[in-house]
Amino acid sequence: MSPPQHRRPWFTLRYRPGVLELLDQRELPEREVVLALRSAEDVARAIEGMAVRGAPAIGCAAAFGVALAARGSAPDGPAAVREAARAAESRLARTRPTAVNLFFALGRMREALEGAAGGSADDGEALAGRLEEEASALAREDAEACRAIGRAGAALLPERARVLTHCNAGALATAGIGTALAVIRVAVEQGRRVEVFADETRPLLQGARLTAWELVRDGIPVTVLPDGAAAHLMRRGEVDLVVVGADRIARNGDVANKIGTYGLAVLARHHEVPFYVAAPLSTWDPGTSSGSGIPIEERAPEEVACVGDRMLVPGGVPVRNPAFDVTPAELVTAIVTDAGVARPPYARSLEALARKAKGPGPKALPVR
Amino acid sequence: MSPPQHRRPWFTLRYRPGVLELLDQRELPEREVVLALRSAEDVARAIEGMAVRGAPAIGCAAAFGVALAARGSAPDGPAAVREAARAAESRLARTRPTAVNLFFALGRMREALEGAAGGSADDGEALAGRLEEEASALAREDAEACRAIGRAGAALLPERARVLTHCNAGALATAGIGTALAVIRVAVEQGRRVEVFADETRPLLQGARLTAWELVRDGIPVTVLPDGAAAHLMRRGEVDLVVVGADRIARNGDVANKIGTYGLAVLARHHEVPFYVAAPLSTWDPGTSSGSGIPIEERAPEEVACVGDRMLVPGGVPVRNPAFDVTPAELVTAIVTDAGVARPPYARSLEALARKAKGPGPKALPVR
Repeated sequence: MSPPQHRRPWFTLRYRPGVLELLDQRELPEREVVLALRSAEDVARAIEGMAVRGAPAIGCAAAFGVALAARGSAPDGPAAVREAARAAESRLARTRPTAVNLFFALGRMREALEGAAGGSADDGEALAGRLEEEASALAREDAEACRAIGRAGAALLPERARVLTHCNAGALATAGIGTALAVIRVAVEQGRRVEVFADETRPLLQGARLTAWELVRDGIPVTVLPDGAAAHLMRRGEVDLVVVGADRIARNGDVANKIGTYGLAVLARHHEVPFYVAAPLSTWDPGTSSGSGIPIEERAPEEVACVGDRMLVPGGVPVRNPAFDVTPAELVTAIVTDAGVARPPYARSLEALARKAKGPGPKALPVR
Repeated sequence: MSPPQHRRPWFTLRYRPGVLELLDQRELPEREVVLALRSAEDVARAIEGMAVRGAPAIGCAAAFGVALAARGSAPDGPAAVREAARAAESRLARTRPTAVNLFFALGRMREALEGAAGGSADDGEALAGRLEEEASALAREDAEACRAIGRAGAALLPERARVLTHCNAGALATAGIGTALAVIRVAVEQGRRVEVFADETRPLLQGARLTAWELVRDGIPVTVLPDGAAAHLMRRGEVDLVVVGADRIARNGDVANKIGTYGLAVLARHHEVPFYVAAPLSTWDPGTSSGSGIPIEERAPEEVACVGDRMLVPGGVPVRNPAFDVTPAELVTAIVTDAGVARPPYARSLEALARKAKGPGPKALPVR
């Protein structure tokens, strides 16, 4: 049947001073290409071009982008480091508008810069080191958050679960084991029998290319289907639950996620299938009161019109390519976070989890 | 903006004695390639490979396949013609299981064969001629049915209508101006302002490739979107109604159509958007009491896993590729036929339209 998958170790992103290595997700599953990025501009382009994607991974990559800028200016002293870090932050904040983790991570880097004191404030090398530490801490915290999401969510799965997911909310979208896929991974570790249906997720096919790629390497059964087939499977009773990631969660629990998520939530409700969202608390944006305040990125029509060298849409025909949609909170059964499972009403439950996790006051203000 | 579209005339299928010419729909929109088919086996393979597709067009192509077999055996006398026509019928009936128009058309050809009397019964050439006439009559009737569907359905559209459609239920799916797209074409002829949203329709992208291609040539505004974006557009109030074709309609009004149609019907209901099905009465199969009796074709995984030479799914990962789904009658606002518009309950309204159209008794029994 399936050929055995080779299991060369891989990583989503890895930093050493002066270089951010990224697995180029545009090339998967056909080729495993590692990019070596040496500047904030390199990182910004990798985010815009979706060599790295997924809200938490974008946040981590952007933090390392600021660190790279700082490291490059370190020989010129602390003022140069500060200027380079601020320019990097400003450039990286313009890469993609929807995922709030980007702004959360940049806010943390700015806080680290502003909070640097003592030796590191007067010494370019030490200041750059401080920013590198902060970016690494963010990545470490993200990996821990993934595990915590997995532990919190695994209990929601029955002993035998057929789970539908959309896009890629896996290791490739984070610095850890994923968000939606963390729930699945921990459930499998606990001995549950999980089968995954991965929506292929047009236009960029993150489900077909990425979710299938990383699950097959873990030996977790996965089947790919066209997005339009999900309703058919639900009607046949083949889906026990849906779990997806999130790019931004508004204060009230409205969820922005990859285009197609909202339709899936409507279908899940129609078929009485639970619909779960898995995301770190850093995806919750209490500054946006509801989903209507979340900016939705429109991407280039070529992403829909072309696959490889094949032209799929006649020349001159307009294409709509919204990258995200908003699922209203009332369609979400629960939100699984690193601080526990939130149930409706979400403004209250997410607030309580955030307070429990952080103590009073937010840890970082998002950049706007 | 858009380059002017060249308007070389085109046809979906065209018969002259001994040759069925088909526009190869696998090559659109990149190339306009006409296939010249000379045997029933050629036609069967073209149907299986989806060089021709769309329930009514499949029926017409199959009828011409029988005619080709008869024409090829004409010099050997009437017994040879009969044998060749029966073998062709049997081969063509195995090409695709879901669309009932195939069986309707083959039933009509068998009736013509069995009913042939006088000179044509004793003369191979005359008998082949009779079958060619019957196939041509079927194509002519299909073209007339398309016009009638258009006239019946156009009145359902408001003066300004933003219409979402799925797959291709157009001229390329019929011997005339289409079914769902006939409704749009006649509405435009009547002066209504219609804008079309075409779901790209994975995996074979009939919306992106075919619906966009034929509408842009008619100067009807069309925008292509990924299937997963339809819900987002509905939520934003950008869709006034949905109209799709059908591959088979059960006695009770359950509709088998291209995979993704059912999900769209659920979304339309959720957003209170009317959901219309347009099809000739020959698509109604009173011998199948409900949708659960309609066979759903599963096609090759490669249709999902590959586009051109690009591999989109990792090797060894299973793929689901149901070609159709079933929309229960309760989600269908109305069924637009060549005999008028049917409203629920459909078993009664479709029966009444069929009786009005045909007089007592069915005109042809489908092949089983």
